[in-house]
Amino acid sequence: MMEKAVILSTGDELITGRVVDTNSAYIADKLYGLGLEVAAVLKVGDSRERLLWALRNGLEMGDLVIGTGGLGPTTDDLTTEVVGAFLGRELRLDEGVAESLRRRFASRGLEMTANNLKQALFPQGADIVPNPVGSAPGFRVTTGERKHLIWLSGVPREMEAMLKESVLPWVAEQRKGAGEILGCTFKIYGLTESKLGDMLKPIPISDRVRLSYRAHYPDLTLRLVVLGGGEKRFAELAARIRELIGPHIYAEADESLEEIVGRLLLEKRWTLALAESCTGGYIGHRITRVPGSSAYFKTSAVTYSNESKSRFLGVQGATLKQHGAVSRETALAMAEGVRRQAEADIGLSVTGIAGPAGGTPDKPVGTVWIGLARDRGSDARLLRLAGDRERVILGASQAALHWLRTVLLGGQISGDGK
Amino acid sequence: MMEKAVILSTGDELITGRVVDTNSAYIADKLYGLGLEVAAVLKVGDSRERLLWALRNGLEMGDLVIGTGGLGPTTDDLTTEVVGAFLGRELRLDEGVAESLRRRFASRGLEMTANNLKQALFPQGADIVPNPVGSAPGFRVTTGERKHLIWLSGVPREMEAMLKESVLPWVAEQRKGAGEILGCTFKIYGLTESKLGDMLKPIPISDRVRLSYRAHYPDLTLRLVVLGGGEKRFAELAARIRELIGPHIYAEADESLEEIVGRLLLEKRWTLALAESCTGGYIGHRITRVPGSSAYFKTSAVTYSNESKSRFLGVQGATLKQHGAVSRETALAMAEGVRRQAEADIGLSVTGIAGPAGGTPDKPVGTVWIGLARDRGSDARLLRLAGDRERVILGASQAALHWLRTVLLGGQISGDGK
Repeated sequence: MMEKAVILSTGDELITGRVVDTNSAYIADKLYGLGLEVAAVLKVGDSRERLLWALRNGLEMGDLVIGTGGLGPTTDDLTTEVVGAFLGRELRLDEGVAESLRRRFASRGLEMTANNLKQALFPQGADIVPNPVGSAPGFRVTTGERKHLIWLSGVPREMEAMLKESVLPWVAEQRKGAGEILGCTFKIYGLTESKLGDMLKPIPISDRVRLSYRAHYPDLTLRLVVLGGGEKRFAELAARIRELIGPHIYAEADESLEEIVGRLLLEKRWTLALAESCTGGYIGHRITRVPGSSAYFKTSAVTYSNESKSRFLGVQGATLKQHGAVSRETALAMAEGVRRQAEADIGLSVTGIAGPAGGTPDKPVGTVWIGLARDRGSDARLLRLAGDRERVILGASQAALHWLRTVLLGGQISGDGK
Repeated sequence: MMEKAVILSTGDELITGRVVDTNSAYIADKLYGLGLEVAAVLKVGDSRERLLWALRNGLEMGDLVIGTGGLGPTTDDLTTEVVGAFLGRELRLDEGVAESLRRRFASRGLEMTANNLKQALFPQGADIVPNPVGSAPGFRVTTGERKHLIWLSGVPREMEAMLKESVLPWVAEQRKGAGEILGCTFKIYGLTESKLGDMLKPIPISDRVRLSYRAHYPDLTLRLVVLGGGEKRFAELAARIRELIGPHIYAEADESLEEIVGRLLLEKRWTLALAESCTGGYIGHRITRVPGSSAYFKTSAVTYSNESKSRFLGVQGATLKQHGAVSRETALAMAEGVRRQAEADIGLSVTGIAGPAGGTPDKPVGTVWIGLARDRGSDARLLRLAGDRERVILGASQAALHWLRTVLLGGQISGDGK
């Protein structure tokens, strides 16, 4: 049974930092979905010695090795030749591929060079993996140890087409009879990664029950994967996670807060207006990066100066003078002001000190007030965020959107920081 | 002499395809710039056996191994423990790090769990690599074979800060004597990576003259590195690059457009107001992510609906009706309107169709007008951007900021799309 895979990404551009390798993540995700474990991803440049090293180690660790890159016609494209040498197999010209290359060139009015015929050479005994969107087909060979080596184009759209049309159906066929892999994703609010890990200690982790975390501030994602344990076992574990951290889960899918908020606004047919100070437009950007947001998003007034808070939102000079721009009163006046001015159902405001300058002993950097106004009244909350300017902006946007989510779900508006 | 490096990227999220590993390309680019050769990048999951494999192979191939990930406080964070076992060194608690963790938690009013103390454990004899922006410091150890192993946080912004502040200066010090390494960075506007490569063909690339590209849309960065060639040779090559692509260079440093624009506004003592439609607040976010931007940034009116374009910016209903929201006339009225309302020196506006819906044969997705108003008059430009919603938003923000830069540098306001 094919259990373990290794992915090889090759090309000088990958090891000089010129290009971020997205192919290996794409392939890993698809293989994982078919129940394979990816043991490693190896990236090497266009060097014979390094390619041989990668082939040797890949086939040692994996039952299946999928490589990309180096199938082109130029001298730095070494893949086929090195694979042939590694397996001790001669290269043979595939007449079908050669003919289709000739036709491809003729149809474009281009002359075919001897170099190009290189792309019709394959190790003896290899099966051809067609390339529906490019000139270089790939190949699949089975080694003496019954391990499988598949090589694909390194151009992402060609690789994706070859994988989808030929490779994945073949892998699925080989994996028939293996146990099922079940997985789900939880999006988390209000916990650090370490606190989350602590709270999940009662979950019995093993080779067959995996928890993985991904912290990409302000996002925290938890994934549960159960290998060959069956639906019932999987459902029990997911239920136990909900018991342990339920109030912190804001989605059971890979959905962002702005997508959730957008969906809820659409469902309720409510419109939203924002008044942003320290977030500088970032909440508006998050809301509007969601396609279709024009249906519920009216405006964001990014009022960085006191003057613009008064002019665009009608915040009273006396409020600003008496309580300051970073205060419960100003946050409320901003939310109410933008709601009124934009004639929106909900007004959401943020005002705070993102730093590095501007903090005081009373209101240190990271002090942020968020306000929310709707027909039934308004309220404000105080946040004390840690970190640099960027973290304060990201954290404030997350807190504001999360509060909006709970209100849209029917939660009370009630500040926890009077 | 340190010549070859191997990069290890670790974490289950990397081999299940959940996350594209950008760390290794970032590190490879920086090491390449210091004259090192990256022999391979190895990615493995959070598994003891695989980590040991990666350490063994990395240290076999490289004089320097830089690893990322697995320094967190949760049970799947195995790095320090496995490195200690691999090197046969006990783990010791670093009191300084432990104390700063305690202070970090206390300052946030959070409870510190026993788990968190794990982050203060290091293999005996290791030097600590400070983490200026996160809780987990890294470490550096030298093996019996005089090879070096450095481990950093897997969180990109933490990794970048640790690399820049501690690792790269140390590597440069070790590489002293390899001949001087001279390098410079050019930030590029208005070219694709392949077009840039084409235009730079006359530059004689070799082992000692290196050009590296980094495309992270909408940013394109070019780096020239000359190894042991001397100041004169370096200056000649840099001058040749300026000859070939001069008008496309907007900075000769790793400076962002928003930083440059901020600096120029400060110098001129001018203030800026934005009127954003399809960019949804993203330009305001870029401007305000720069510390100190409150000195020149007044407001951004994110007017997504026609109604809010009229209400907040005074765009005439007749203008919107006759020419549409995405038109030269509306872009001009938005820029002039926000400049007037906010009493700013410069008004900058963007209105366009980010997609995926909303395009017409006349105005397909990617059609964007940008407008700029100042005391001497105003003008607008038409962009036709390719790609999905995100690319249109990013590309429009880049074009608007780039135009603002040229105006601040004394360029004419003159539209090229009447």
